Amino acid sequence: MSKKILLVLNTDPPPRLGRLTGRTRILHTDASSLAEHLPHADVLLVWDFTSRAVRDAWPGEGPRPRWVHTASAGVDHLMCPELAASDTLVTNARGVFDQPIAEYVAALVLSWAKDLPQTGELQRAHEWRHRETQRVAGTRAVVVGSGPIGQAIVGTLGALGITAALVGRTPRSGIHGPDDLDRLLSRADWVIAAAPLTETTYGMFDARRFGIMQPSARFINVGRGPLVVEDALVEALSRQWIAGAALDVFDREPLPPDDPLWDVPGLVVSPHMSGDTVGWRDELGAQFVELYELWEAGKPLPNVVDKKRGYVPGH
Amino acid sequence: MSKKILLVLNTDPPPRLGRLTGRTRILHTDASSLAEHLPHADVLLVWDFTSRAVRDAWPGEGPRPRWVHTASAGVDHLMCPELAASDTLVTNARGVFDQPIAEYVAALVLSWAKDLPQTGELQRAHEWRHRETQRVAGTRAVVVGSGPIGQAIVGTLGALGITAALVGRTPRSGIHGPDDLDRLLSRADWVIAAAPLTETTYGMFDARRFGIMQPSARFINVGRGPLVVEDALVEALSRQWIAGAALDVFDREPLPPDDPLWDVPGLVVSPHMSGDTVGWRDELGAQFVELYELWEAGKPLPNVVDKKRGYVPGH
Repeated sequence: MSKKILLVLNTDPPPRLGRLTGRTRILHTDASSLAEHLPHADVLLVWDFTSRAVRDAWPGEGPRPRWVHTASAGVDHLMCPELAASDTLVTNARGVFDQPIAEYVAALVLSWAKDLPQTGELQRAHEWRHRETQRVAGTRAVVVGSGPIGQAIVGTLGALGITAALVGRTPRSGIHGPDDLDRLLSRADWVIAAAPLTETTYGMFDARRFGIMQPSARFINVGRGPLVVEDALVEALSRQWIAGAALDVFDREPLPPDDPLWDVPGLVVSPHMSGDTVGWRDELGAQFVELYELWEAGKPLPNVVDKKRGYVPGH
Repeated sequence: MSKKILLVLNTDPPPRLGRLTGRTRILHTDASSLAEHLPHADVLLVWDFTSRAVRDAWPGEGPRPRWVHTASAGVDHLMCPELAASDTLVTNARGVFDQPIAEYVAALVLSWAKDLPQTGELQRAHEWRHRETQRVAGTRAVVVGSGPIGQAIVGTLGALGITAALVGRTPRSGIHGPDDLDRLLSRADWVIAAAPLTETTYGMFDARRFGIMQPSARFINVGRGPLVVEDALVEALSRQWIAGAALDVFDREPLPPDDPLWDVPGLVVSPHMSGDTVGWRDELGAQFVELYELWEAGKPLPNVVDKKRGYVPGH
């Protein structure tokens, strides 16, 4: 039996793959050589999840890996019609980012409620200025995206006494459908985008939706940049349709140094890091090894992405 | 029956006292006239809880109010030996600040864990720099002060998955005694001071205690300024015995503009506001009116301070 070939899209070796040494041939590639290696690989591990290289290389000639795993929650960066139409299995890192992202969202919510950014400004100015701050218990949140990340966010906000509604593509127990979204948005104190990027969710946070939010509302995007029409968000902030926003994801990443978004008043800009807590690379590596061993044994894999929908369907 | 005289230490009328109009004579005083009015008052409401005027005026000549209520959790600003030795009842605002302060502590903990202050700095510099942040779930906190504020902090941190130990003066179910403190401090990620200021707690966070904390630990004081030896904290931060600190209370309040504390690296300075959420003055006013009506009816009051100990004893 010949060794299986595992192709890793990343020039540096990911952690934890040492466990596969001896029984698997591991090849590393960068984006420019991916097309050349693709026909020879049994499995593709997309470790560099910022790269669009799979989308570009996949449609080419020759055989294709039977299984593609991405070390990310979203799969929008690798999906293309040819991969979607193939019978290659696609899996994702479902589960690794849930609790970290939920904590990150809670950090932003509490930081705003307690006015910590202004506390920093006043400290730099040596100014003792007492303010009354907001209680978060009793406020209302809407979380868009009913996967494990959205569910974890609802759980963490709920633990702080915030009434958090979850909105998904299909209404089911404890989850609102799209028809409820606008009504929920119009009374929310916190609006959190945690949906996968699909045809349905692309640009869903547009001028109309920012327009129906409360002037006191704050918006957070921890999903994917194109969920938000960035110009519309900038306008909503400048016209004070909403009170503040935080973007961890953008249309263009990394955000170029001259991008006007850096300087929008009321906007927190962070570098796509909401789910990345100490040890996350280790966890991603260990998760892949676990899946690899199931695959090697011919067992069914968890975290299988519905390639038409663009995410792992819920239960 | 002559109307009772309620003396309010504050020149502006507190909210909600309108309910007492017609049945109570309400006099307002500032610090300078307090001594003069004190002998004529049945009840003293210390609304201006930053003032030390009661401590100064109480020892004077003449009769004294039978009941003193302070619109604060701490009573250190008004207690003096003469008041402690008297049979005047002292009550406090127990209950109003618990949940707000717990949320404030959670905001600081999460903001540090997710590195939000540096996110702000990098945003101002237009710099996209990914960092790995900390998960709070699974970390350890020690909360010193086992009253309702400390208990609320433990509850809120616990809801975030943080293992939080509570330390009080007397060990009892779920509460560690002082003997456990140093051991708990030496393994804590978060140390929160929420104790009343008493002879026992004065200066308890000193060089020795900062010295036994972990280099990764962060310290928060939401109790009273003198719980902390400020110079020792500054030294602990500069020598990196601990990773960061936040003070909401100080030896001198307001902190003068030229105080060196404003500029200590790693120190968050806020103006004694951790418990003050929108509506807090209303709540304090309503709480006093509730107590006043009990007192008027000759019923026993809640929130009675043990004047020797300097706080409301727990159950």
